[in-house]
Amino acid sequence: MKLKDIGEFGFINRISPLGNIRPEGVIKGIGDDCAVIQIQTDEYLLVTTDLLLEKVHFLVEWASPETIGARALTANLSDIAACGGNPRDVFLSLAIPDKMEVEWLDAFYRGLTKLARQYKVNVLGGDTTSSKTDFVISIAVTGLVPAEQVLLRHTAKEGDIIILTGPTGLSRAGCDILIKRQDLKTEAAIAAVEAHLKPRPHIAEGRMLATSGACTAAIDVSDGISSDLAHLCQDSGLGAILYETRIPIPPELTQLGKILKRHPMDWVLNGGEDYVLLAAITPTKLQGVIEEAEKNNWKFYPIGEFVAGPKMQLSRSDGKTQEIAPAGWDHFA
Amino acid sequence: MKLKDIGEFGFINRISPLGNIRPEGVIKGIGDDCAVIQIQTDEYLLVTTDLLLEKVHFLVEWASPETIGARALTANLSDIAACGGNPRDVFLSLAIPDKMEVEWLDAFYRGLTKLARQYKVNVLGGDTTSSKTDFVISIAVTGLVPAEQVLLRHTAKEGDIIILTGPTGLSRAGCDILIKRQDLKTEAAIAAVEAHLKPRPHIAEGRMLATSGACTAAIDVSDGISSDLAHLCQDSGLGAILYETRIPIPPELTQLGKILKRHPMDWVLNGGEDYVLLAAITPTKLQGVIEEAEKNNWKFYPIGEFVAGPKMQLSRSDGKTQEIAPAGWDHFA
Repeated sequence: MKLKDIGEFGFINRISPLGNIRPEGVIKGIGDDCAVIQIQTDEYLLVTTDLLLEKVHFLVEWASPETIGARALTANLSDIAACGGNPRDVFLSLAIPDKMEVEWLDAFYRGLTKLARQYKVNVLGGDTTSSKTDFVISIAVTGLVPAEQVLLRHTAKEGDIIILTGPTGLSRAGCDILIKRQDLKTEAAIAAVEAHLKPRPHIAEGRMLATSGACTAAIDVSDGISSDLAHLCQDSGLGAILYETRIPIPPELTQLGKILKRHPMDWVLNGGEDYVLLAAITPTKLQGVIEEAEKNNWKFYPIGEFVAGPKMQLSRSDGKTQEIAPAGWDHFA
Repeated sequence: MKLKDIGEFGFINRISPLGNIRPEGVIKGIGDDCAVIQIQTDEYLLVTTDLLLEKVHFLVEWASPETIGARALTANLSDIAACGGNPRDVFLSLAIPDKMEVEWLDAFYRGLTKLARQYKVNVLGGDTTSSKTDFVISIAVTGLVPAEQVLLRHTAKEGDIIILTGPTGLSRAGCDILIKRQDLKTEAAIAAVEAHLKPRPHIAEGRMLATSGACTAAIDVSDGISSDLAHLCQDSGLGAILYETRIPIPPELTQLGKILKRHPMDWVLNGGEDYVLLAAITPTKLQGVIEEAEKNNWKFYPIGEFVAGPKMQLSRSDGKTQEIAPAGWDHFA
């Protein structure tokens, strides 16, 4: 049997029961954006890790080393955001092939620390080693969140409104352009590539949701709405209905869809790595959350609601309803 | 310029000043066994990370997957031990080549969690991804230590006694046998290979030193006495003198030295990965520490003392004195 036969989540389900050896104080070990560990009665330590390999997760030819460095950190900061936390410290480990220039590494580190500085996050010790083949980046990030504010995946309630803290789809379209159509230099193509290479972690949005008293659950859109919403649904024992007319479609996707022969909604629902947040909001508090977001110049999108489970459905603009299957990224599929 | 030109520590010195963005609460960021972060006034969180690559750090042919899994965790547990802490949670990330069997991974995870269970350490979330080439293991471990007990590298005092919590050298001899002489099946060779593949992290010894009130500084022997003592000396602004007659030489090394044409003291001083602790003890409290160790059936070895710096010297059995240079492992040398 090979990993591709059982998939990434199959493998995680396989190994996770073995790891929970001392359950006291572990609020979330595996199966959420961060591991959440009780340190004292009023605050949780958040820890999230990521392993990025050249040629699997990125190509050094795609972007400057500064951009690759910043992007490597973004996914973990986004995980902290999804738990409502403030990131605290980054632990960076690198496996470096002999052929790599130190100047490239300096620039990589410069990009990463520039992003870290924006969020007042340290980049602390880690491990540096040689690699016989490709460049490997391992990142662990810790964060803190007041215990009563932590945002998890399993706590959405039936009737809660599903919101996005920003539009999705552009990042994956940008990835498609980098893979297949680097010659494409339209404004839309450039915007999509930029969205893929320089996503912004929604730390401030996450903190706002965490302190709002209105948010019952959250996840970041790393694998795509369809996959990430499925996590919220499964973990909360609920289903969901999304309304097609309420889901934001970046205008660039309409243009790019014609060129790349793909339906924009496919990118919007199934494309990952936008790193916006997908959250559950108590209906009576929705208006307040949206207004509070506007004060910060953010646009939050109510795109659907949680219903009795387990189906995820899309209420289409033509009046028909279709089921949504998780179709985001699985590393081993 | 390539990394091999400046070495691992050259690279760390190059990048570490950039990372210390928010110094409040960071007791140790880079340059110790663990990053040490103040969480509350009376306890420190310890975080240590390690990145291990197939063919760089280990060969899957060398040992069972269970052994490889346990060994992967040992280095990090040893880092927690060197800070005097109790390990708490393990965050494991793996990059897995397509060819790898899930059964192999299950066994790897079984070995790792068996060791984790011995120390009541959880194995929590992490990241799992595919690899185009080799198997990559990334491990982050957190630990806790009462603030007043933490053992660091820069706090040794002139006149402090240098102790080892166990003998060194056997692990590196075992590594040499695995590389060059797998046909060698003498009792000594088997013991050396066992020492290399199944080192024991000195967690309990570290806790004992941390609570003794006698230990002023500590490090684990991961790169070899000569390199690791150099860290204690440089960070504490001291030199050291070691007495050859007091340094334990495992009897197996005498036999293996003849076969592999290497001086046993070379393995003892320069061989790494034994994962015993090298610590500084206040002279008036040495006897108490040694007796306390004996109660636990441990043998601690006073092998020298810290002197005004910066030289590290070996007082030889023939009465002569020679300088010791750090000669342990550097991944890029």
